[in-house]
Amino acid sequence: MKKIAVLTSGGDSPGMNACIANLFTLCNRKNITLLGVRKGYVGLVENDFITLSQEHINNVYNLGGSFLKTGRSEEFLKESGKQKAIKNLKEQGIEVLVVIGGDGSFRGAQELSEKGIKIICLPGTIDNDLDYTEKSLGFDTAVNNCVSAIDKIKDTMLSNNRGVVVEVMGRRSGDIALYTATASNADAVVVKEVPGSKDNILEKVKLAISRGVESPTVVVGEYILDVNVLASELTQSTDKLFKPMILGYIQRGGNPTVFDRNYAMELAVKTIELIEGGIFNRAIGLKEGKIYDTELKTVLFKEDNFNYELYNLFQKLNS
Amino acid sequence: MKKIAVLTSGGDSPGMNACIANLFTLCNRKNITLLGVRKGYVGLVENDFITLSQEHINNVYNLGGSFLKTGRSEEFLKESGKQKAIKNLKEQGIEVLVVIGGDGSFRGAQELSEKGIKIICLPGTIDNDLDYTEKSLGFDTAVNNCVSAIDKIKDTMLSNNRGVVVEVMGRRSGDIALYTATASNADAVVVKEVPGSKDNILEKVKLAISRGVESPTVVVGEYILDVNVLASELTQSTDKLFKPMILGYIQRGGNPTVFDRNYAMELAVKTIELIEGGIFNRAIGLKEGKIYDTELKTVLFKEDNFNYELYNLFQKLNS
Amino acid sequence: MKKIAVLTSGGDSPGMNACIANLFTLCNRKNITLLGVRKGYVGLVENDFITLSQEHINNVYNLGGSFLKTGRSEEFLKESGKQKAIKNLKEQGIEVLVVIGGDGSFRGAQELSEKGIKIICLPGTIDNDLDYTEKSLGFDTAVNNCVSAIDKIKDTMLSNNRGVVVEVMGRRSGDIALYTATASNADAVVVKEVPGSKDNILEKVKLAISRGVESPTVVVGEYILDVNVLASELTQSTDKLFKPMILGYIQRGGNPTVFDRNYAMELAVKTIELIEGGIFNRAIGLKEGKIYDTELKTVLFKEDNFNYELYNLFQKLNS
Amino acid sequence: MKKIAVLTSGGDSPGMNACIANLFTLCNRKNITLLGVRKGYVGLVENDFITLSQEHINNVYNLGGSFLKTGRSEEFLKESGKQKAIKNLKEQGIEVLVVIGGDGSFRGAQELSEKGIKIICLPGTIDNDLDYTEKSLGFDTAVNNCVSAIDKIKDTMLSNNRGVVVEVMGRRSGDIALYTATASNADAVVVKEVPGSKDNILEKVKLAISRGVESPTVVVGEYILDVNVLASELTQSTDKLFKPMILGYIQRGGNPTVFDRNYAMELAVKTIELIEGGIFNRAIGLKEGKIYDTELKTVLFKEDNFNYELYNLFQKLNS
Repeated sequence: MKKIAVLTSGGDSPGMNACIANLFTLCNRKNITLLGVRKGYVGLVENDFITLSQEHINNVYNLGGSFLKTGRSEEFLKESGKQKAIKNLKEQGIEVLVVIGGDGSFRGAQELSEKGIKIICLPGTIDNDLDYTEKSLGFDTAVNNCVSAIDKIKDTMLSNNRGVVVEVMGRRSGDIALYTATASNADAVVVKEVPGSKDNILEKVKLAISRGVESPTVVVGEYILDVNVLASELTQSTDKLFKPMILGYIQRGGNPTVFDRNYAMELAVKTIELIEGGIFNRAIGLKEGKIYDTELKTVLFKEDNFNYELYNLFQKLNS
Repeated sequence: MKKIAVLTSGGDSPGMNACIANLFTLCNRKNITLLGVRKGYVGLVENDFITLSQEHINNVYNLGGSFLKTGRSEEFLKESGKQKAIKNLKEQGIEVLVVIGGDGSFRGAQELSEKGIKIICLPGTIDNDLDYTEKSLGFDTAVNNCVSAIDKIKDTMLSNNRGVVVEVMGRRSGDIALYTATASNADAVVVKEVPGSKDNILEKVKLAISRGVESPTVVVGEYILDVNVLASELTQSTDKLFKPMILGYIQRGGNPTVFDRNYAMELAVKTIELIEGGIFNRAIGLKEGKIYDTELKTVLFKEDNFNYELYNLFQKLNS
Repeated sequence: MKKIAVLTSGGDSPGMNACIANLFTLCNRKNITLLGVRKGYVGLVENDFITLSQEHINNVYNLGGSFLKTGRSEEFLKESGKQKAIKNLKEQGIEVLVVIGGDGSFRGAQELSEKGIKIICLPGTIDNDLDYTEKSLGFDTAVNNCVSAIDKIKDTMLSNNRGVVVEVMGRRSGDIALYTATASNADAVVVKEVPGSKDNILEKVKLAISRGVESPTVVVGEYILDVNVLASELTQSTDKLFKPMILGYIQRGGNPTVFDRNYAMELAVKTIELIEGGIFNRAIGLKEGKIYDTELKTVLFKEDNFNYELYNLFQKLNS
Repeated sequence: MKKIAVLTSGGDSPGMNACIANLFTLCNRKNITLLGVRKGYVGLVENDFITLSQEHINNVYNLGGSFLKTGRSEEFLKESGKQKAIKNLKEQGIEVLVVIGGDGSFRGAQELSEKGIKIICLPGTIDNDLDYTEKSLGFDTAVNNCVSAIDKIKDTMLSNNRGVVVEVMGRRSGDIALYTATASNADAVVVKEVPGSKDNILEKVKLAISRGVESPTVVVGEYILDVNVLASELTQSTDKLFKPMILGYIQRGGNPTVFDRNYAMELAVKTIELIEGGIFNRAIGLKEGKIYDTELKTVLFKEDNFNYELYNLFQKLNS
């Protein structure tokens, strides 16, 4: 193995930089050249590669985002784009492409693999919405960001005896909402995976108030309901003012947590092990808390591995 | 002097707890009993007082919000409510009332002072919208919160080469927006005090893009324009995607900065000096960087002490 | 079950407050009175109990430390002290005692259980030095604190091209050192569990320098070597200035991470489940990432469950 | 004016990057080339310059440290080194050199100015030890770092009813110690400027204990006394355990505060104003809260502008 490339694609997630840095360190140990593709698949199509050196990674280990930048390429979605990408990869002499991203990025990678490119996929998304892995890189940081934000918000809510309805990210997955709700001692959580969860919010909030909770907190996953409307409804149905709050992009940035940095390292080590073992077209992830790899083409958007156990614990505390 | 009371009113602001703690420490030194009024004017009307002790303040110095809680009282706005407040103050034997809050709170205090209650007012609001003081307590923390949030947001925006339009608080004052814009190296700022500031945003953003800025940032004070609409317009008029972001309540909470903690101390020391000197119905604030006091009844909502100097510096950097 | 009590003992750890809050919430749901014992075993001996209410926990969920305070009791170590404790527990009508602490606290609890007190033990220590659980409550927060501190330290070290030797806590366990080293991209780690780890530091540092690392970082567990001496030696043996740094108590405080808050919740839920099931004298912990319980008397100081897997990954990156 | 250069020298301070970024932005507006000198005077001697571009500054605005690196040059102290520096400056066509640093850096700059190099000096040091300016760049961030660290430390100290003795930086200036003490509600502060301040620590601590302070806190400037010894003495003379803590390098790094970022901007704007006005060999700083400039050769190490007013306020609270 002489030359591999890495790209970050889709939404950025904290830990991507640490993962690239660890890949570089390992390649460097083994005299493999590591190229960085800029802007995800955009750079692949546009032949935008840089040869990584120690200098690139000296200052980025602890930073959120991706110093290679991520991107979404319209052109890559077309056959012509993919052919350009393949041509560029070949002309650069790249033997393996490492893709860090979410399910859209994985689909692109899968298509390249079908056309003969050797691929390793790493789960880089805060949304935790890939079915084959218990955690994706950046998820832990995102939830910690959400919870820190709610800590601040509650300084105000507690001072005013108000309630709050907080919308968090996660796309089709309720994991950010669930972990945020449990860790911020919320009183209700609304997630896509449990359609009924949006029906008994008022009941749960009233229960909390009856028990002396001064600032009832409802955490809601995105794309489910309008938090402004919900806050109004709760205000009208209780004797408390409820404020809506959409956390937005503050939850995606910032320095990665220890979990995400160490996960980034483990992903990088496993990547190089697979490559050295001649094993390709794999996605790496976590299963029962351990790093493992699985066939890339079997990986799907997560449908059914929502953490019902944690969800049920939360219900137990709030019923 | 035997007994004084303190209340926090209106929106909470970081530093209120430190200010109460310092008032307690000073009163304790001088054998003055300090009562805390709970929930601002609500507690005054409802006779909700607690006698403060060292135990109350051992753990709150560094916390945002107000452990006495703040509140807005409908009843206090009526004459009957004010009479109840005065009756309670007299029956409790309270000789001076210290009010920490914003312009609404100051108006209530002014009315009480006209009815014979001895008052000292301290500027506790993140909005920095009182005309007699250069800074209000909590403003520095709020701006630091905004800037930290934008740091996180920019991790994502820079990774994707996107722009962002950020709405911050401040009610009728553009100070939070201005200081946030300068400190986050933004490319345009929109404030109420400069009506034209909302007219040349696109021009400034295009200028920034032409100079190589990858993630142009626009900071907008609240109640001026719809950041969702502005972000769409900028997206359509440039080749960049702009995301809207409303920071909301994360900017009001959290541990106060050094500036706000030390300001809280200085306000407390001055309060006790005035009280010991038999000087009442004063508002304390900052003038040319120094603590000073002025007649309460002359204090108004800030109209004309926007920091045009800083605004002009910002324009110089972005033109 | 009518009445149970909880105490925090030994060094405080972030998450203790969240755990107490969750215990209260669950007891409240089931009409069980929850008493808090102040200052750990000191309060048990001195009959210092408070009946917990919603008000106690409204503001503490996210705070480090323990609002019940922890303590070390000389008297409890004697038979007479233990008899006092038992007498107080009985007179208060306490049916089960929940102890949150480290191995010293567990020994005390074990002795009480032998004398007929029903006990549940929860692992509250940043040191992660209990053999029966993969993680103790507070460990994740402590490591995140260490890594955030090193992020700041490296701003300076990178600006000056200096190296740094950082001492972290952990008592007899190298876990804080190991996780801190991996997550801060350190170049060498020294832990008690691997005696040879202190012998090849210079070699590893030289290797890092030869590869272009500008600020080589060595993380050292406490009570192994003098970081001042080590920093001097590295300075003399390389062409770089190495600075020593002992992180100390900044690593123990601060708001708990999401992991520790959710772990606190899971510990509380399991505690009440055991109590309701009539199962006592158990220690609760994590095994293969899942909550489980084991017989209290079999729990020992951790000797042999150091994370050699992670240690070996780290070596792989730095050799 | 066609070409200027900037260097950062001495200890790094948060805000240096923002200052360089603002200098670049302003130069760019005016078609002035801005060179960055790497490693302070080392790069001047070794002819290590880079031409700054928008790309250099897109990601560093909010980062601590200096991306140009700082350094201490033995060679520059000699006449031969200075001659090399001057030769390099001339050959590069550099018309003005902007130096950001502390008093050592200023002395070097002063010597260059005497040899005909046009100089502007900006006060970049956390120590706040330059006599001509009320604040130096980085000081506000450093104090905020110290206070955040003490917040964490107090979680533990309050949980255990212990006291703490904290050593902070500042070299010959007590400003970091003083502002840290006031903002962390400490009970005693020891600074060089008030030699008697180290003599009545025990008295102040006993007073605090007598008033119910659970975790008395003493803040000590560096190079005055051994905090380990002081902590032992306080332990022996009271009924409390006192822990020593040296904050070290965590106080120098991290993202700059709003104050330091805005100050960085104001320094940059004033620098370019002076240069455009043909005014050189000036040091820029703050006087009565406003940016001003003064003759470089009159600038000295700060002897007598310690903030006695704040010190006296602190004493008033703690006596």
